[in-house]
Amino acid sequence: MSDSLNTLSAAAIAAGVRAGDFTAEAVTAACLERIAKREESVHAFAFLDPDLALAQARAVDAAEEKGPLAGVPVGAKDIIDTHDMPTEMGSPIYRGHRPPADASCVAQLRDAGAVMLGKTVTCEFAGLTPRETRNPHDPSRTPGGSSSGSAAAVADTMLPVAFGTQTGGSVIRPSSYCGIVGYKPSFDTYSLTGVYPAAESLDTLGLHARDVGDIELVHDALLRRPHRPRPVPPQPPVVGLCRTWMWDKAQPETREAVEDAAARIRDAGGRVQEIELPEELEWLGGVRGVINAWERAAVMADEWRRHREEISSQLQDTIQQGLDLSYAEYTDAMYLMESCRIKVTGAFAGCDVLLTPAVDGEAPEGLDSTGSPQFQALWTMLQTPTMTLPSSKGPHGMPVGIQLVAPYRQDDRLFSIARWTVGALS
Amino acid sequence: MSDSLNTLSAAAIAAGVRAGDFTAEAVTAACLERIAKREESVHAFAFLDPDLALAQARAVDAAEEKGPLAGVPVGAKDIIDTHDMPTEMGSPIYRGHRPPADASCVAQLRDAGAVMLGKTVTCEFAGLTPRETRNPHDPSRTPGGSSSGSAAAVADTMLPVAFGTQTGGSVIRPSSYCGIVGYKPSFDTYSLTGVYPAAESLDTLGLHARDVGDIELVHDALLRRPHRPRPVPPQPPVVGLCRTWMWDKAQPETREAVEDAAARIRDAGGRVQEIELPEELEWLGGVRGVINAWERAAVMADEWRRHREEISSQLQDTIQQGLDLSYAEYTDAMYLMESCRIKVTGAFAGCDVLLTPAVDGEAPEGLDSTGSPQFQALWTMLQTPTMTLPSSKGPHGMPVGIQLVAPYRQDDRLFSIARWTVGALS
Repeated sequence: MSDSLNTLSAAAIAAGVRAGDFTAEAVTAACLERIAKREESVHAFAFLDPDLALAQARAVDAAEEKGPLAGVPVGAKDIIDTHDMPTEMGSPIYRGHRPPADASCVAQLRDAGAVMLGKTVTCEFAGLTPRETRNPHDPSRTPGGSSSGSAAAVADTMLPVAFGTQTGGSVIRPSSYCGIVGYKPSFDTYSLTGVYPAAESLDTLGLHARDVGDIELVHDALLRRPHRPRPVPPQPPVVGLCRTWMWDKAQPETREAVEDAAARIRDAGGRVQEIELPEELEWLGGVRGVINAWERAAVMADEWRRHREEISSQLQDTIQQGLDLSYAEYTDAMYLMESCRIKVTGAFAGCDVLLTPAVDGEAPEGLDSTGSPQFQALWTMLQTPTMTLPSSKGPHGMPVGIQLVAPYRQDDRLFSIARWTVGALS
Repeated sequence: MSDSLNTLSAAAIAAGVRAGDFTAEAVTAACLERIAKREESVHAFAFLDPDLALAQARAVDAAEEKGPLAGVPVGAKDIIDTHDMPTEMGSPIYRGHRPPADASCVAQLRDAGAVMLGKTVTCEFAGLTPRETRNPHDPSRTPGGSSSGSAAAVADTMLPVAFGTQTGGSVIRPSSYCGIVGYKPSFDTYSLTGVYPAAESLDTLGLHARDVGDIELVHDALLRRPHRPRPVPPQPPVVGLCRTWMWDKAQPETREAVEDAAARIRDAGGRVQEIELPEELEWLGGVRGVINAWERAAVMADEWRRHREEISSQLQDTIQQGLDLSYAEYTDAMYLMESCRIKVTGAFAGCDVLLTPAVDGEAPEGLDSTGSPQFQALWTMLQTPTMTLPSSKGPHGMPVGIQLVAPYRQDDRLFSIARWTVGALS
């Protein structure tokens, strides 16, 4: 059995470990075996110590109380602190850095019985500069970024769940490119203690998994509440079809994925109505770079001062752009973003969730870029919870996802409708 | 001259160093001398390495370009990371901890030519549990907390400027108790990168100084804009006298300080109008503990897991309270707080700033408590910029401050009116 345990969902793993059907050690061993076989092609891990992982798993097996995530192997993007593994931020500046504490999210999952399997590859400081991870569906293509290793490892069944972070599109994009479920909660839902910032007014900790149920399971552990799988809604949902003004910039496979999902939702009894976003939201594209660059320059003031030559030229350009901005330009951008958060609430009127593109198209060829964040970053700025679900394939057979968006703090509604939508799409 | 350089303002120090009137080294030496004389009574410092401070000062003297804070000695609360000094969070858990980087705010002030003189005593993890610092005006009394060392060091002319943080009232209260100027900016103004969190939706980095001009000087450096002292407003301001529903809980000296300030503002030509806060704001007192405890429990998940016995029983109680809360209780509290932020904008209608109590009264006797945060925490929750100005004395001769509050992101207006108010009070 051991050679298939790595393909189980987190929920199935926790249930099996709790029931004594198999051990946490066997699950971790199966994941390590998969990694040993595939890591050379995928390059998902920034740090992996098999002995440390197995020791954690044995401790779970030995514990009398088994938590809700008993024996579930979890990966953490390498900007998330771990007290027993290095945290290198995808940068030579932090080579070998050992934080004194676990990030809040890591400690909370350990409390729930999870095994912190390893640290996954991040783009440099969770930015745009790609690193060595490859798309498990086609090693000549990007897995997306910046949570590259987390999405690739989950997609490749190296582990069932991993943490990512999103400041532009860094959870939803790699999830879509790798064909898995990605979830960015409402802004400020999970603690960011121990997570290296990128742009503090946008940074959001999120999750990668292979099904919606696993997202819910981990979400409940992080919110310290008893886990109960959500029921699907009592009535089929009302879904706002939101093409956005960027529709023409999407590849045909993205437009098809969204239109096809809308058709299937209708077929399953859901109501689909066309939604126009308020025109002012188009300005958000312009201000995102301002907010990101200004805040990035503040966040990295020390690295810029003392280690500039070890920062990639791409990130140096972003920081320099931030340093060249005036505070008035920044606060004007912030004001605009804050006002758009209020305006977008109107777009949800009469809809339970919005259906919208997740990405431009399938994962592009090459490893020089992690793809465009435009379809994800809009919702990051608006602070709304979003989830991508794998729904179809592009012209090269690569996965393409759709994106569901709920109003601020309606994450539970999003889960429930996502479950229903998975049924409608299948 | 060296024996009085420590009493100069930051602005006078920077001007003198830039003009060659004295060296940064002489300024730092004067501060170190003052500390050597007084630290045994005040206990303001968690870490001080005179050689390191003097080396920084000599580097400023040697530099060709002198920044806007050239040679200004600055203290940082010991939850703020420094790459060359330990950061111990006021807790044995972090004894000897050496962060890999400077906090954003520290790096930015170093860029501007400041000398990071030392780390100032913080209450345990910026909470309520007091430590060894004493009020420089009377060592039998608390300096307030949690930015105890920062406020005491500035008040005692050990240095002109120090960083504090406020989650409840931790900048404004110790500033008032120690008789100096304290400033809590609009939420999200300064980067918190490298600052250990307490409750992430409330944490605000702030400043302690002996005059408004020094606050402005440092503020401009942190916002990376050229420094220009603000002019006083062209017309005397309209000040809303805001007693709040807690007025009866204030000591007589606080009520007198506020009424007296209102009278002097009127005498100086300002208009004073009575302001009633929306009744719903009274609920904020009740939800603050919920938000604080829930977020504190998340922030400290690792310390709770691995070092519980090294956490004070007071802080353990707060964390346990957070763990006992449900997520629904937390989000209800957040919703209420967020809605009050919108409602309070109405209270500013027709007023430039509000005049309100800063603290219950003068610094209480004893070191067992750092005083009540009630008059400060209200404005922390509302995210509004506030400043305390020393204005009078209590029955035991201890300083008592007033508090000025401006609407969200109207920090520049707050500075300008604070300057005018200092003139009106004198």
